[in-house]
Formats: sequence, C-alpha cells, structure tokens
Amino acid sequence: MSTSTEAPLFAVVMAGGSGTRFWPLSRGRRPKQFLPFAGGRSLLAATVERLAPLVPVERIQVVTVAPVADATRRELPELPAANILVEPEGRDTAACLGWAGWRLAEVQPDAVMVVTPADHVIPDGGALRRALAAAAEVAQKRGGLVTLGVRPTRPETGFGYLELGEKEEERWGLAVHRVSRFVEKPDLERARSMVQAGNFRWNAGMFAWRVEVLQQAIRRYLPDLAAGLDRLMADARVEGEQPALARHYPTLPRTSIDFGLMEKADEVRAVATEFDWCDVGSWNGLAEILPAGEAGVTLGEVISLDAENCVLVSDGPLVAAVGVRDLVVVATNDAVLVVPRAQAQRIKELVAKLQEAGRDSLL
Amino acid sequence: MSTSTEAPLFAVVMAGGSGTRFWPLSRGRRPKQFLPFAGGRSLLAATVERLAPLVPVERIQVVTVAPVADATRRELPELPAANILVEPEGRDTAACLGWAGWRLAEVQPDAVMVVTPADHVIPDGGALRRALAAAAEVAQKRGGLVTLGVRPTRPETGFGYLELGEKEEERWGLAVHRVSRFVEKPDLERARSMVQAGNFRWNAGMFAWRVEVLQQAIRRYLPDLAAGLDRLMADARVEGEQPALARHYPTLPRTSIDFGLMEKADEVRAVATEFDWCDVGSWNGLAEILPAGEAGVTLGEVISLDAENCVLVSDGPLVAAVGVRDLVVVATNDAVLVVPRAQAQRIKELVAKLQEAGRDSLL
Repeated sequence: MSTSTEAPLFAVVMAGGSGTRFWPLSRGRRPKQFLPFAGGRSLLAATVERLAPLVPVERIQVVTVAPVADATRRELPELPAANILVEPEGRDTAACLGWAGWRLAEVQPDAVMVVTPADHVIPDGGALRRALAAAAEVAQKRGGLVTLGVRPTRPETGFGYLELGEKEEERWGLAVHRVSRFVEKPDLERARSMVQAGNFRWNAGMFAWRVEVLQQAIRRYLPDLAAGLDRLMADARVEGEQPALARHYPTLPRTSIDFGLMEKADEVRAVATEFDWCDVGSWNGLAEILPAGEAGVTLGEVISLDAENCVLVSDGPLVAAVGVRDLVVVATNDAVLVVPRAQAQRIKELVAKLQEAGRDSLL
Repeated sequence: MSTSTEAPLFAVVMAGGSGTRFWPLSRGRRPKQFLPFAGGRSLLAATVERLAPLVPVERIQVVTVAPVADATRRELPELPAANILVEPEGRDTAACLGWAGWRLAEVQPDAVMVVTPADHVIPDGGALRRALAAAAEVAQKRGGLVTLGVRPTRPETGFGYLELGEKEEERWGLAVHRVSRFVEKPDLERARSMVQAGNFRWNAGMFAWRVEVLQQAIRRYLPDLAAGLDRLMADARVEGEQPALARHYPTLPRTSIDFGLMEKADEVRAVATEFDWCDVGSWNGLAEILPAGEAGVTLGEVISLDAENCVLVSDGPLVAAVGVRDLVVVATNDAVLVVPRAQAQRIKELVAKLQEAGRDSLL
C-alpha cells in the first residue's frame, strides 16, 4: 500500500511500557510488549511487522527504555540499530514522542509521523494501515493533530474516550471528524452512555501529525518540555547524544501526550476506525484475542481435564488443570500464578507483596 | 530403648512403593517414600530414623525395587549398602517379606523381624517403637503372626480393618489381642459401623514375627511362594544372588501379605496402638500431617493472598495463589498441577492422559 502524502512518512512505535499485570510472564525486563500474544510472536514484533507495508523499516523508529533496550534490539533484528531510540528512563508519552519528533525534525523537517503503541493487538493489519494512511494524509494536508478513534465494544472504564464532532471528509473509506472533546477514564455509567451514544471513540494512542506541527503544539502547550528538548538536542550536537540524554532526559516534564497536548490543542481530528483492537490489559484480555478451546484460552504447554473457561498459560513447566473453572494459571520456570479470573486485577497486590519480601529476582 | 526379646531383632522396611497420586511431585523414579513430607526429610529417611533407636541400622533392611534402588541408597547413606535389598521387580508384599525372611533365616534363624512400610507418617517415634517392641516380644514369646492395630480416626473405605478378639495381655502399656478376623476395604456404611463399634483397627502394614514362624506360615499358606524362594536361595548360593534373583523373582506369585497370609493364618495377634498415624494417601492427606496456615497447608516456596483451605506445594517455581479456595496446586520444574481438593483423586486420569500422549519424561 502506498499513501498519497507527499512528505516522507515515518512511524514511531512507543515500546517503553512496563507493568505487572502479566506477572509472572511479564517481568521488569520483559514487559508486555515482549509477550508472545501475537500468534507466537511478541506484540512488539507484530506491531513492526504490521506497519512495515506502509512504512519501510528504515523509517520505523522504536522508542524504548534502557532496561529493555537490549531485549528490544534482539526482538527486532530487521530494524536498523539506529532506529531504536533508548530513553534513559521513561518520562511518559509526551517526552517520548517529543524527543522522537525533535530528532526527526533535524533530519527530515517535512516528515509526517504516525504513532502506535507496541503492545496492542490488531488482527487486521490492512485495516490499521488504511487508517494510519488516512490519518497521515489528513495531517499532511490539513495540519493539526490527528488521532485514531477506535470503535468501543464495551463500556470500558479504563480507557480515555473522544467525542467525534463535525465530519469533514472520508479517506480510504473512513470518516474523518473534528474531535469535540476528550473524556478521561469515565465511571461505568458515563462509559455506558458514551458507548450507547455512538459518537464516542476510544483514544487508543495512535496518532499522526507533521513533525513541525507537533513541535509547534509542544512549544505552545508544553513549553518546559520544548525547552528541555531544545537543550538536549543542542548539547547532543556538541557532545554526542548519550551524555546529553543522560543529563537532560530525566529532567523532562512527565506527562502524557493525551493530557498534555491532545486534550488542550485546538485543531484535533480523528479518523473513525472500524477494526478489531485489543489492548490486552490483563490475563482476562487474552480471552478476547485467542481462540477459546474446551478449557478456555490456552497458550504454551497445557493439558486439561474438564477445565472450563480458564486462562491457562505455560512458558516453561507443563500446566495440568483438572476440574477447575474460571481460573487463571500462568506457569514460568521460577513462578506460578493461580488466581480466579474475577480477581486477576489483584496481581498488583501480589507483586507488591513480593517486592516487600525482597523477591527482586522474581519481579 | 531396649526390648526384652532374647533373639536378635531385625527390621524390614518395605520401600518398593510406586504410584501416581502425588504427581507431579512423585514420578516413576521418585515415588511417595522419597517425598519431603516428614519435616523436610523424606518419608523413607524418617522411617529409618524412627526405627534406629529400637533396631541398630546394621539390622535394618530396606527392600526396594530396581528402578529406585540408587535413589534409595542415596537417601539412606547411614545404612550399610548390603542392607538395601533390591527386587528386580515388585511382586507385592508377600514376596517382598518372604524374600527378606528367607535371607534372614540363612544368617540368623532365630531372628525376630519387625516390618513397617516406608511411606507413612508417625509423628511419635517413641510410641511406634513401644508398639513394635511389644509386638516383637509377643512374637518371640508366643509365636504366631503379630500385627499392629492402628486406632481408626475416620470411616476410611480405602484401608483394611481387623477385629480385636480376646485380650491376652498388656505389654509396654499396650493391649495385646487375638485377631478374630480381617475385613478388606469396606463400604462406607460398614466402615462407619466398625469405627463406632470400637473393637476394629486399621491394618496398617506393620508386623512382627519370628523368621521361622514366617517361613512356616508361607510354606503352609503360600506353598508356591515358599518353593520359589527355596529355589532362589539355593541357586543364589551357587551362582550368586543377582542371577538367581533375575531368574526366579519375576516368577514369584504376586499377592499381599494381608490377603495371602494374615487373613488365613490361625494364630494372629494384634497390638492395639494409640499413636497418630497417617498413610498420606493423596494431596489431601497432607492436610492431616502438616500444620495449616492461613492459606491451608503449604510446602516449599509459596506466597498467598486470601487463599483458603488449599494445599500449595512447590518443589521449584514459587507458587503464588491469590483468592483461591479448596484447591491443590503443586509446582515442579517441569509440571504444574491445579485441581480442586475434592477432585484430587482424578490425578490418575490425568496421568493416564499424559501416558497416552507419550509424555514419558513427565511420568
């Protein structure tokens, strides 16, 4: 697929995620984007593979954090080493995308940049590329910030929403709207009414903009971030990128691109997408993306006898489940988790307990 | 403690057990007697240690089977190597004890022999030794076959029972009765009525007899076994024990000492014991011998959060249990079992399924 944007198209993959919701499979040095939830491949590898027909790998940049930089390089052998940008520490998405934008502006000031997270599941790669191509064209031709608005499938309270305003046009068969407003994580009632209303979309962290538009917006709405990035880039030109990063990056303001920029900017558009999308937010989320068998959803070496509606995952020892239902079992070589599906969110309590107990090798 | 028997006292530990009820912790080459259910030590090591004050280790003989012979030797470094008797294959308890008796008769024809299984839990070693000393004295002084009658604590349908008849005397504070009859594994109603009656005891595989009395009884009630053992011993004298064993042992009749001998013999006595005893027949049985904590019974590296009435066992990976109840979780380095306590007996179905699937390395 090619796009009709005239400026060169770059992709930035945000791969700095961390988290404990997939413990014990995910660890500090193996966060969710490395997990084999994409038909045996990692979410990260699948993300890059999905983008590649639209954006050649030479122009795909992956932003990650120091602790998982080596793992990221190993996971993406097809990517030029220089395309893996390593934050000394995570400073949230505004700093991540700002830094990627400032760097890109130096080499390709007229670039259009599309952005996706590294840890989501989108089975229909073609549909994603169509939506990103549409967003890139809108960003190129109209300016402003463009986001993908994912059709909500349930009243999820863990996501942000955006309200579609005036429809301006169609591109690649998709409606392009002005965004009237963003709604932060709502309560259940509010989420229900938004889903029912039909003109609200999930804000799923996928964007497009011209690099110069991004810079202008950051200068206006996040001036401290802009100033920090200016200093970083100036020093990097003189002393090299690593020392400049080490000194300046940890001082960048920590805010999200949604809260810091998208919700404040005047000119925001959304491409209304129709594709299936899943952020795989927890072990239960696996049930949305993997086909269910007799025992429920299984991954890796699993044997079961009259198990029902379970999530059974092995990354090491065989998992043998007999007569259990509605249970999550995850086995790795050094830790095994057993928790009812309805209590899967309590993994963070468990991880906190392990931290208190000083069990760092398991985290 | 010393006993007043005049003849030398020998002990025979039956350690040829196999089975799948403790899968995945127990395996073909690591049956139940090797499991660390005795305060971190194996049941086998604890059994020998319990006997040692009564019977010096030089006179404790352990009968095991070829596949676990090396493991048995490693587990009992204090035992002279010659005291570990290795059956080429298991031929049930009559052959096991017959062979041990025939061998002992050659070197010590006036020996008294006490017998215990290797895989039971008896917390009060002193009480066991008192009972065995009493049984040995009765066997020495009165002749006949003597068994320990363990006080039943529940209407168990998986055990054999014996009925206490006339009380003949007391020794070491324990009543010695004639046995009126044996009852094979009863149904629940029958088991209940026996436990209520008060004069029934569990037949728990612990015996005492003079070696010559054992030989006479086997010659009378199991003449084929006696003939086979005669041939085995005769050939062993000429050509050595290994070739003789290899040729004759697999031909010995396969029957239990209970069914083949005790239930048929005229003169059987029982020492009525009062000590706590547990055969640890399944994962649920662990709850009888280990102290229960908040989560239930745990063994090895376990962490839990609001788990209740579980059996949580680790022999490798940490087991982390959150919000589960009435569940058995057993984790080893290559297999993890999860099964409700009420369905623990279904492990054998699971093991059969693994066998069908050719997963021999896990069995």
